[in-house]
Amino acid sequence: MPEKFMRAALKEAQKAFEKGEIPVGCVIVKDGKIIARAHNLKETKCDTTNHAEILAIQKASKKLQAWRLLDCDMYVTLEPCSMCAGAIVNARIRKVYYGTKDEKTGAVGSVFNLLEDYTFNHQVEYEAGILQQDCEDILKQFFKMLRKKKIK
Amino acid sequence: MPEKFMRAALKEAQKAFEKGEIPVGCVIVKDGKIIARAHNLKETKCDTTNHAEILAIQKASKKLQAWRLLDCDMYVTLEPCSMCAGAIVNARIRKVYYGTKDEKTGAVGSVFNLLEDYTFNHQVEYEAGILQQDCEDILKQFFKMLRKKKIK
Repeated sequence: MPEKFMRAALKEAQKAFEKGEIPVGCVIVKDGKIIARAHNLKETKCDTTNHAEILAIQKASKKLQAWRLLDCDMYVTLEPCSMCAGAIVNARIRKVYYGTKDEKTGAVGSVFNLLEDYTFNHQVEYEAGILQQDCEDILKQFFKMLRKKKIK
Repeated sequence: MPEKFMRAALKEAQKAFEKGEIPVGCVIVKDGKIIARAHNLKETKCDTTNHAEILAIQKASKKLQAWRLLDCDMYVTLEPCSMCAGAIVNARIRKVYYGTKDEKTGAVGSVFNLLEDYTFNHQVEYEAGILQQDCEDILKQFFKMLRKKKIK
């Protein structure tokens, strides 16, 4: 089941790739249905808050007309950064499934673990490594392409 | 000088207060001029990403047509949470001035200090306590009013 939704997040990552964005995709699921899909648009929109997770939270909030995304789970191809992990806690997401780790800025187990911090009044479960290889491959492919472009 | 810009942030907090929002206001300054003003709109917009700091970063990015808010300083009445502190680091803000501490969820010195974390490739200076009493008073006044409403 997590794989099915991670495939949908990977499709979003592919859309980001095609726009020249770092390929990260995200979906939010409630009652077994995808209620929001988004991909990274930071460069396109010239706005660092346009990470896939933030955009997906905004879409889900609009759909549910609520800032508390109760009983909602997030599937995201890359480990969330501090901004996104903070937003996930604030939105009361139930569980986060992510694909591959971000050793440099990941805030869900790598550099920090903001989701399970017990000073907050809400903790978020998480599971890492869902379709890990696919999620890593699309990122590697993107950065390889960027390096080639720079050499040319 | 910090007081002048914090007064502008307090004006924004007052706008939030009048809308029934937790009164937090924020301005972003570049070259001595305010380039973005925003206040908390979480309840109004049913969206937890609508904190004053995120909205101000979005406005400043739109104005500068850049996600890197280089040489920009932020003035915010309340200590930023993890989401906002993460966004501040991602946006490469130069310095954050804030009014009063948030002992429960503050991520700029209280619970965490995300701005000065040396695992990130950008650190943000900060100064706390600018017009501290005024920034605290507006929050206290708001929560006092909320409690009175609940009793009625």
